[in-house]
Amino acid sequence: MSTVSEVKQKAYLAKQAAAITSQLTTDQKNAALLAMADALIANASDIIAANKIDLENGRQNGTSESLLDRLALNESRIAGIAEGLRQIVELNDPVGEQLAQFTRPNGLNITQIRVPLGVIGMIYEARPNVTVDATGLCLKTGNTVVLRGGSAAIASNKKIVEVMRQALSATALPVDAIQLIEDSDRASVNEMLKANGLLDVVIPRGGASLIRTVVENATVPVIETGAGICHTYVDESAQLKMAQDIALNAKSQRPSVCNAMETLLVHKDFAKQHLADLLAPLQGANVAIRGCEKTTAVIAEASAATDTDYATEYNDYILNVRVVDHIEQALQHIAQYGTQHSECIVTENEQNAALFLSSVDAAAVYHNASTRFTDGFEFGFGAEIGISTQKLHARGPMGLPALTSTKYIISGNGQIRQ
Amino acid sequence: MSTVSEVKQKAYLAKQAAAITSQLTTDQKNAALLAMADALIANASDIIAANKIDLENGRQNGTSESLLDRLALNESRIAGIAEGLRQIVELNDPVGEQLAQFTRPNGLNITQIRVPLGVIGMIYEARPNVTVDATGLCLKTGNTVVLRGGSAAIASNKKIVEVMRQALSATALPVDAIQLIEDSDRASVNEMLKANGLLDVVIPRGGASLIRTVVENATVPVIETGAGICHTYVDESAQLKMAQDIALNAKSQRPSVCNAMETLLVHKDFAKQHLADLLAPLQGANVAIRGCEKTTAVIAEASAATDTDYATEYNDYILNVRVVDHIEQALQHIAQYGTQHSECIVTENEQNAALFLSSVDAAAVYHNASTRFTDGFEFGFGAEIGISTQKLHARGPMGLPALTSTKYIISGNGQIRQ
Repeated sequence: MSTVSEVKQKAYLAKQAAAITSQLTTDQKNAALLAMADALIANASDIIAANKIDLENGRQNGTSESLLDRLALNESRIAGIAEGLRQIVELNDPVGEQLAQFTRPNGLNITQIRVPLGVIGMIYEARPNVTVDATGLCLKTGNTVVLRGGSAAIASNKKIVEVMRQALSATALPVDAIQLIEDSDRASVNEMLKANGLLDVVIPRGGASLIRTVVENATVPVIETGAGICHTYVDESAQLKMAQDIALNAKSQRPSVCNAMETLLVHKDFAKQHLADLLAPLQGANVAIRGCEKTTAVIAEASAATDTDYATEYNDYILNVRVVDHIEQALQHIAQYGTQHSECIVTENEQNAALFLSSVDAAAVYHNASTRFTDGFEFGFGAEIGISTQKLHARGPMGLPALTSTKYIISGNGQIRQ
Repeated sequence: MSTVSEVKQKAYLAKQAAAITSQLTTDQKNAALLAMADALIANASDIIAANKIDLENGRQNGTSESLLDRLALNESRIAGIAEGLRQIVELNDPVGEQLAQFTRPNGLNITQIRVPLGVIGMIYEARPNVTVDATGLCLKTGNTVVLRGGSAAIASNKKIVEVMRQALSATALPVDAIQLIEDSDRASVNEMLKANGLLDVVIPRGGASLIRTVVENATVPVIETGAGICHTYVDESAQLKMAQDIALNAKSQRPSVCNAMETLLVHKDFAKQHLADLLAPLQGANVAIRGCEKTTAVIAEASAATDTDYATEYNDYILNVRVVDHIEQALQHIAQYGTQHSECIVTENEQNAALFLSSVDAAAVYHNASTRFTDGFEFGFGAEIGISTQKLHARGPMGLPALTSTKYIISGNGQIRQ
């Protein structure tokens, strides 16, 4: 027998299982998710023990306390993760949904329905909750999953996957629908990225460098998620209070996430009257300001913003501020530095709002609301696989339908093509 | 000034133009398409003269007569190409179409609309009609296009693009919305495949080797088209006449295309009675049979089919025939050798039909009709960018909506996230 790599072997098992999972009913899939949720609770102490190994290794490797906190599991966090699975049970199953139905003049009856994508490769970083969350979303949509988490969480992930697979053994869902790549070598990631014919899609979840690696090396189709350099443009006619609230929220409510604001653009006439007032709440929230010349002239604490700053996703309490001459300059700035994620205009001028909403090329474009709303839960999807920053397949917050493809079913009575 | 490559320069111009084309009305786009159609007719003699250069070069390079025929343009073919543009004018413009609209409990009003993809890179082979056809489809959907045709048609393509760009100069559509890469070096293809940030998507149209090159090397998202190893499974209960007609049509109506049949699977009990009758019309149409042992035992002229044969897209008057023990074996064969393009079952047994339609993983699955119907025009889409054989974004025949993305527009009155 020749040696088959772990990735090939497990992806092949997942592919075999996908032929079964694609045919299951919603009830069968939901029963499996509930069994997984129960098993996670029942085996919480084993999972916590495995997690202790990861935490201990992390401490020895000098991992930061904030990362260790993201990695840590306890009974309450495991209960929350199990609850997440139960929430997925409540969601509509998109598989089988009829998207189109028509009869051609020759009598052919054509129906387009949603089908699972097949085998989904998930490549992600530290937090072990993603292991459960991603598995739940993939299984609910009739897919199977090949998980490749970060090495920092490998002991936790192994135990969690063991528990989930065991739970499946008493259900209609094949155990092999869940696969974990245990090899922590980078080569296993690269092998997943080239596993055409075995994996149908790869979804990276993590920092910019992980996503770049995936996009640059994958021959398997990718759903790109993540990078967000988001802008808020405060127009001439904006209400000061609304602009203050939205800017403060977009920057500081949770600066570490992709839909947080990185650059505030301000119309020069608004700035002349209100720039200091607009920025005061941000400064009060310990946001460091990097500004254009007009900004640094008004805000003593502001340092000078560079081109590199405008092109940086800080994910931190830092904000670029640039005063612009008119809305067109704001649009140009966003076209140049934006990542087509989430962009906002604050204005009372409906014409400018319409221009901004229509011409800004981004997944989500806001008028008078914080960019922080770009999120599957906030949009009411009940789940989020991630926020797609690409234009193909899915764009913006992705709910369950983003994990499906389609298929045409054609019924005839002997039609042949002329 | 540093040297900027042709690809970067032209893709940049196309990107600038895309900001304008995305905002045009349907009427403005249609007027431009009609102007292009008129200009092609008015300049037919110049185009034919340019085409003569390509034909002459082709003859000197020993190009086959059938390829020369595909390359050749005359007045009637140019009229047909112009008519194709006029037909695109008649189609619904998907841009701006509202796909979803909902209001959240916090009062945020969320609308999802179709928007252009942006800049589309088309990489294709010989036929110069693709130059016009692809341009028309891209412009109708508010996109701009960077064309990279085969070197065999370069003189024709240069003239056609010159004529189309000139026609645009009198319209609202910017001339730079159409770009032709003239550099015939392979390096220009590779540069397009890595032009992230300039090209939003690359669509290859051509043979298997072109498509493989694109899929393996692209970091820009790709819409994969083309490869088709299609099967027809004749079940135990099939009607002989219907099975004969469908098999003959699927194989020989136009063997060179991706939705033609390559392998015929026949239930053993049907084969026992009817195999020779089933294959007689095919043999009458000069189709060479490569068969399994049971087939060669009955059909004297058949040679033995190999594993490689089952995995080959012949695009020719050659057919594999395999007798199977039951439908499950047919399903296994299709799962193993199929390319998820178009698959057919001929049967009078509704249960088997349902099993086949549900469990075969392909873009189009047929019951009692020829696989040759997998086509944008046959499906009634009025256009076809290609037939997607991938599962992301679009699957099966692609009409105009496949050339669009979506965008969320969110209107509020000062909402911030809690």
